[in-house]
Amino acid sequence: MESPKKMEPQSEAIKTDVLIIGAGPVGLFAAFEAGVIGLTCQIVDTLGRIGGQCIELYPDKPIYDIPAIPSCTARELVDRLLEQIRPFDVPIHLDQRVQSVVQREDDHRWTVTTENGMTFDCAAILIAAGNGAFVPQRLQLPEAAALEGKDVHYSVSRAADFAGKEIIVAGGGDSALDWALALKGIAKKLTLVHRRNGFSAAANSVATMKRAVEAGEMDFVVGMIESLDAPDGLLRGARIKQVEGSVDIAADKIVALYGLVSELGPIATWNLDVRGGRIEVDTSNYESSRPGIFAVGDIANYPNKQKLILSGFHEASLALRKAYSYAYPEKKRVHVHSSYDAKLAERVNAAHAADNA
Amino acid sequence: MESPKKMEPQSEAIKTDVLIIGAGPVGLFAAFEAGVIGLTCQIVDTLGRIGGQCIELYPDKPIYDIPAIPSCTARELVDRLLEQIRPFDVPIHLDQRVQSVVQREDDHRWTVTTENGMTFDCAAILIAAGNGAFVPQRLQLPEAAALEGKDVHYSVSRAADFAGKEIIVAGGGDSALDWALALKGIAKKLTLVHRRNGFSAAANSVATMKRAVEAGEMDFVVGMIESLDAPDGLLRGARIKQVEGSVDIAADKIVALYGLVSELGPIATWNLDVRGGRIEVDTSNYESSRPGIFAVGDIANYPNKQKLILSGFHEASLALRKAYSYAYPEKKRVHVHSSYDAKLAERVNAAHAADNA
Repeated sequence: MESPKKMEPQSEAIKTDVLIIGAGPVGLFAAFEAGVIGLTCQIVDTLGRIGGQCIELYPDKPIYDIPAIPSCTARELVDRLLEQIRPFDVPIHLDQRVQSVVQREDDHRWTVTTENGMTFDCAAILIAAGNGAFVPQRLQLPEAAALEGKDVHYSVSRAADFAGKEIIVAGGGDSALDWALALKGIAKKLTLVHRRNGFSAAANSVATMKRAVEAGEMDFVVGMIESLDAPDGLLRGARIKQVEGSVDIAADKIVALYGLVSELGPIATWNLDVRGGRIEVDTSNYESSRPGIFAVGDIANYPNKQKLILSGFHEASLALRKAYSYAYPEKKRVHVHSSYDAKLAERVNAAHAADNA
Repeated sequence: MESPKKMEPQSEAIKTDVLIIGAGPVGLFAAFEAGVIGLTCQIVDTLGRIGGQCIELYPDKPIYDIPAIPSCTARELVDRLLEQIRPFDVPIHLDQRVQSVVQREDDHRWTVTTENGMTFDCAAILIAAGNGAFVPQRLQLPEAAALEGKDVHYSVSRAADFAGKEIIVAGGGDSALDWALALKGIAKKLTLVHRRNGFSAAANSVATMKRAVEAGEMDFVVGMIESLDAPDGLLRGARIKQVEGSVDIAADKIVALYGLVSELGPIATWNLDVRGGRIEVDTSNYESSRPGIFAVGDIANYPNKQKLILSGFHEASLALRKAYSYAYPEKKRVHVHSSYDAKLAERVNAAHAADNA
């Protein structure tokens, strides 16, 4: 994995009652519920846009099982939720992957930092991170880890770093083909390695690649990378396993483009009870094994958990009521039906009036 | 309580996978979820119209906390849910208060009868009865029960039964004042009893009542009924507790009009674990203490339960997945995201096409 960008933490931590991790539908609705019960919140998301996995994966496919919305796309769902939270002016920080969490001993508040240097000081944390952060699938070889970010790459940030190199591009999707074609011109030698002679890429790219192989501009080898040769910490080549036997290919750069997978990311190091990539929670308040940290939506796990968006809405509502007791331990929260909540009505009406002004 | 209407049961039981008790928002959405996962269902409700308590109590007040619906009235919420379940053609039986439940020993299916004589044969029962059925608040006196329906009444069905009687009308709301004024003309003597000299009734009715008292057409006594005098099973009078001491009033009819309260009704006799009028359930599947009977929405209770409509939606979704295992014990249900469910898309589109035809 490329080493994460590290920046100096902001001098000033942002203070809030609840830090919501994830700007998907469940994280957005959580911000609404926080506002309704009187909690301030801030939202962070790893991705560069609001909406989470459902916007990434199927922005325009109809969703039928949101209660009282017979049919809507993910995009519409997210727009409706943004409209719903507008009265609360919730800050949403994108491109912010959470990194570390520290709990203070004196007041039990949490300090959460992101990889891009933001710091939050909060009474409770609500993880609504869906299936986790999307990250490139890595080479499943023990010797790869030490080479990551040096000679083994999962993305290309500066093409110039690959000039004059013997490069293996691994993978059979659009990214792999596009980068193989883009780098072949500056490489000393470029070999595309894919487990089969068939591609999940645009037909045009496949044809272009095949012509380039025929013209001797690049090689294509069917097989899987089974080991790396890097005796002194510098990559020299890779052994490719084929149907019969193996073949060694000289290389000083590997770009593995196997697509994205989801993973907990740094949250996996937060000492939560995690099983099968999901955070175990108690169904009375969706709190994790660390009191004050909650997990809701697809990332949460409990007996008979269903990955339904509507379940995330319920889980967030209950979690925030417990979170309230961390933010305001001295106060007793009184349940008011939204219909009878004059302040809420005022906020919603004010937001709409501002719209029409 | 007036004795319920009893009719002969239908000769033919209606066979269905799940009987949903309650046609409020949660019961309606439960019917949608049942359809999505492949269960048939039928809905019954005590009330004469669809929508449950929220339509009865605040049809036009805005609700703000339905996820992704920034603001809607109860009426709109119910209309949207009816639109959502339309693809599944779910039968809804109104004015049907459930009465008895019997579980067969051989196949564990349930036979449920209603007070109006319908019979259902189902694999599982989902109780989504909100705060229960609305019934008149009764006199909280041990001796009252034996007199109910004879000399103690909570409504007036035939005014003629009260002609020539010494009547106490108890209560301070519109019903109490209206009936006191309506019956005084045919009563031998009529006394209105209310705990204070202030009324939650139309100003006009209060003024009319006060004039009637001044004119000697009826009496008004401030106090609370503390005991009934009915030595031989026939009402002779009531003792009214006042700030200082008590007063005895002769009466052979009492009409107590204290307003409506909600109660479980006959469901209370179904041998479920009930505490404080709510049914205890397990949060992994919202099943009651009797396997195969589920409770969801406001009528369900568990640690940290919140009376939120969105919680009922989640509870119903999980309950129905367990209900599936009772209806089809041999099948394994596979979770499909609604976006990828071709059959569901087809049904929804067909329903809309029928609309536009």
